[in-house]
Amino acid sequence: MDPKKIIARYKKQGARVETKARVKLRGKKDFTLWYTPSVGAAATHLAKHPKDARQMSIKKNSVAIVSDGSAVLGLGNIGPYGALPVMEGKALIFKEMAGIDAWPLVLDTQDPDEIVRIVKAIAPNFGGVNLEDVSAPRCFEIEKRLQDIGIPVMHDDQHGTAVVVLAGLMNAAKVVKKDFKALRIVISGAGAAGVAIAKLLHAAGNGHIIVFDTKGAIYRGRPGLTGHKEDLASFTNPPNAQGSLAEVLHGADAFIGVSGPASVAAEEVKNMKKGAIVFALANPVPEIMPEEARRAGAAVIATGRSDFPNQLNNALVYPGIFRGALDKGIVKITEETKLRAARALAALVPKPTAARIIPDLLDKRVVKAVAKAVR
Amino acid sequence: MDPKKIIARYKKQGARVETKARVKLRGKKDFTLWYTPSVGAAATHLAKHPKDARQMSIKKNSVAIVSDGSAVLGLGNIGPYGALPVMEGKALIFKEMAGIDAWPLVLDTQDPDEIVRIVKAIAPNFGGVNLEDVSAPRCFEIEKRLQDIGIPVMHDDQHGTAVVVLAGLMNAAKVVKKDFKALRIVISGAGAAGVAIAKLLHAAGNGHIIVFDTKGAIYRGRPGLTGHKEDLASFTNPPNAQGSLAEVLHGADAFIGVSGPASVAAEEVKNMKKGAIVFALANPVPEIMPEEARRAGAAVIATGRSDFPNQLNNALVYPGIFRGALDKGIVKITEETKLRAARALAALVPKPTAARIIPDLLDKRVVKAVAKAVR
Repeated sequence: MDPKKIIARYKKQGARVETKARVKLRGKKDFTLWYTPSVGAAATHLAKHPKDARQMSIKKNSVAIVSDGSAVLGLGNIGPYGALPVMEGKALIFKEMAGIDAWPLVLDTQDPDEIVRIVKAIAPNFGGVNLEDVSAPRCFEIEKRLQDIGIPVMHDDQHGTAVVVLAGLMNAAKVVKKDFKALRIVISGAGAAGVAIAKLLHAAGNGHIIVFDTKGAIYRGRPGLTGHKEDLASFTNPPNAQGSLAEVLHGADAFIGVSGPASVAAEEVKNMKKGAIVFALANPVPEIMPEEARRAGAAVIATGRSDFPNQLNNALVYPGIFRGALDKGIVKITEETKLRAARALAALVPKPTAARIIPDLLDKRVVKAVAKAVR
Repeated sequence: MDPKKIIARYKKQGARVETKARVKLRGKKDFTLWYTPSVGAAATHLAKHPKDARQMSIKKNSVAIVSDGSAVLGLGNIGPYGALPVMEGKALIFKEMAGIDAWPLVLDTQDPDEIVRIVKAIAPNFGGVNLEDVSAPRCFEIEKRLQDIGIPVMHDDQHGTAVVVLAGLMNAAKVVKKDFKALRIVISGAGAAGVAIAKLLHAAGNGHIIVFDTKGAIYRGRPGLTGHKEDLASFTNPPNAQGSLAEVLHGADAFIGVSGPASVAAEEVKNMKKGAIVFALANPVPEIMPEEARRAGAAVIATGRSDFPNQLNNALVYPGIFRGALDKGIVKITEETKLRAARALAALVPKPTAARIIPDLLDKRVVKAVAKAVR
C-alpha cells in the first residue's frame, strides 16, 4: 500500500488499543468497593504481601512492551516515536491472539543503565516485559541484567525469532529427509536475531553452525573478536572456517539470512547441497527472493513476509510464551522453555511440505500450543 | 466492609482494567495494515513527525498514572505494591468517567531525580501524566521539573484537591451569605494538598488565609522556615498570627482540614464566627466528625467520605481536567485552568444548600463541564 494512504489510515484510526473497565461503576456501592475507601484495604494488604499483586491487580495479566527505538524493524535507529506504532501493533497482537493486556512503553533514552533502571522501576505493574527493537550488542547486556527482577524479561527480536526459526528448520529438515542435528547451517547476520538463533539451534543439538557478520565468518582467534561474537566463536564453526560466504555455503544444507536485502546470490545457493533450505528473513526485502532461490535449486524456502509461503514471524511465538508465563507465574524464559516452544510449534504441522513448514499466523492453535509448552 | 472480605473480592476479581483492541485482526489484510509491513510506514512517519503521535497512536487518549507510593491515601509510605491498587482504581475512574485510557505506573524508586528521568523517558507514550500519592515536599520539586516535557503533568493530590475545595468553598460561602474573598480561612496541614489549596484560594482572590503545620501557624520569619513553607508565608497570614489553632480559629469563617484524624476539637469550632464552614477532609477519619461539627455550630460541613453529604473528592476534577487537556492538546495545567475548572464545578450546583454544595461523583455533567472549562 502507498505509505501516504497508510499514514492517512493511521491518522483516521487514532489509537489501535485502549483500556477497558473490568468492573462496573454504577453507584456509590461500586465506588466504595473498587475505589475509596475499600481500595485502602487492598493497598495495605499488597504493601505487606507484594506477591499477591499477581492475583489482585493488573500485574496478573499485563506485559510491558519496552523499546528504545534503536533498531526498529529494518528501519534502524529511529527513536521512541518511530518505535511507538510498532509497539502498539504488538500490544494489539498480544490482546487479540493471547488475551494479554500489553502496554507500549517506548523510552526516550538509549542509555543501557537507564533502560535497566527504568524497567526495574516499572516492574511492579507488569507480569512480564517484552523487550523489542533494541540494537545489538546493547540488547544482550540489557536483557541479561534484567533476568532476576522477578518477572520474565524476553528480548523478542532474539528469542521470538530463534524459536520460530528452530521450529521451521526442524520441519524443513523433515521435508528434505535430513537429520536436523546433522544439518550444516550457515547464518548470515550476527545481530540480535543471528546470535539467538545460533544459540538455540546449538542448544537443540546441532553442532554444525557457522555465523557470518559483515567481516566474514566468525571463527576462534579472529582478530578483534570480543563480547557476544567471541562467545559465538566458542561453540560454532568447528572447522574454524575463514572463507567467504560463497565458499562456506558451498555444500551447506541450510542458509538462514537475518542480515539485509539481496545479500545472497543465486550462484551461492546453487552450490549448496541438494535439498537446500533457504530462510531469507530480512524484511521487507529478503536476502534472496523466493522465486530466485527456487530457480537456484532450493528445496524449502521461507521468508518473514506474509505474501510468500512459510512466513517465519515471531508473532507465532511471543503471545504464547507470555501467555504461558503469566498463567504459571514463571519468572524466567530459559533455553529449555524456548526449545519446548519450538517443538510445540513445529508439531502443529505434523506432515510438513515445502509449501508449509510452519502454522499460519491466524491459526488459533498456535498460542495454546506454545503456552502449554511453556507451562 | 471487613478488610478480609475486600481482599477476597479483589483476589477474585484480578485486574480491574484491561486492554482492548480498537481494530480487528480478522485476516492477513488486517495484519498487513495494522502490523507488518504497513506499520513501517507509520514508524517512518512518526520518526520524522513526532507531533503526529497525538493523531496516530495511543498518545492521543492516554494518561500515565505515576506514583512512587510515598504517600498513599492516609496510609503513608507503603511503596509501589501498596500504591498499585489505588492507581488501578484511578485508571478505572479515568476510563469510566472520562473515556481516557490511563495506565498505572507505580515506580519502585523514591529518588526524585530518577522519577523525573523516568517520567521524561516514558512521555512519548502518553498524552498526559497524573502524578499521584507522592509525598511533600518531594512532590513540589518533581512536578515543577516536569512542567516542560510537552504533555501536561499534574500532581492530583495537590491540584485535584485544591480545585474541588475551591468549588466547594465558593458554594459554601453562598449558603452562609458571605463573600468568598472576605472569608477568614484556616487551613490545617501544609502537605501537598494544604499548599495547593492555599495557593489556589489565594489565586481566586482570597487574601485571608492562615496555614498550620505540626509546629503551628506558618508566619513570615518563623525560625527554620524553608522551601514551600517559606513560599506559603509570603502570601498567607497577613496579620502574621503566631497563636495556636484554637486561638487562630477563634472568629474564623472557614476551617479546611487536610491534616489528620480528630485533630480539631468541638470547642474550637464553637469559637468560629457564625455561619462557620468546616471541611474535614482527612480520610477515612475526618478532623472532626460531621455530627460533632454540627453540634458545635458549623453551618456547612463537608468531608472526603462518600457516606456523608458534600463529598469533596478529587475524582470530581482529574477526569475532566485530563479530558479537556487531551482534547485540546494542552501541554500545561495552569493556575488559570484550575480556577476555570473550579468555577465550572461550582456552577453545576447553582443553588447550593448546606446539604449540597458540590455535585455528586456520579453526576454525568461533571466531566463535561470541567473538560469544557479546561478547553
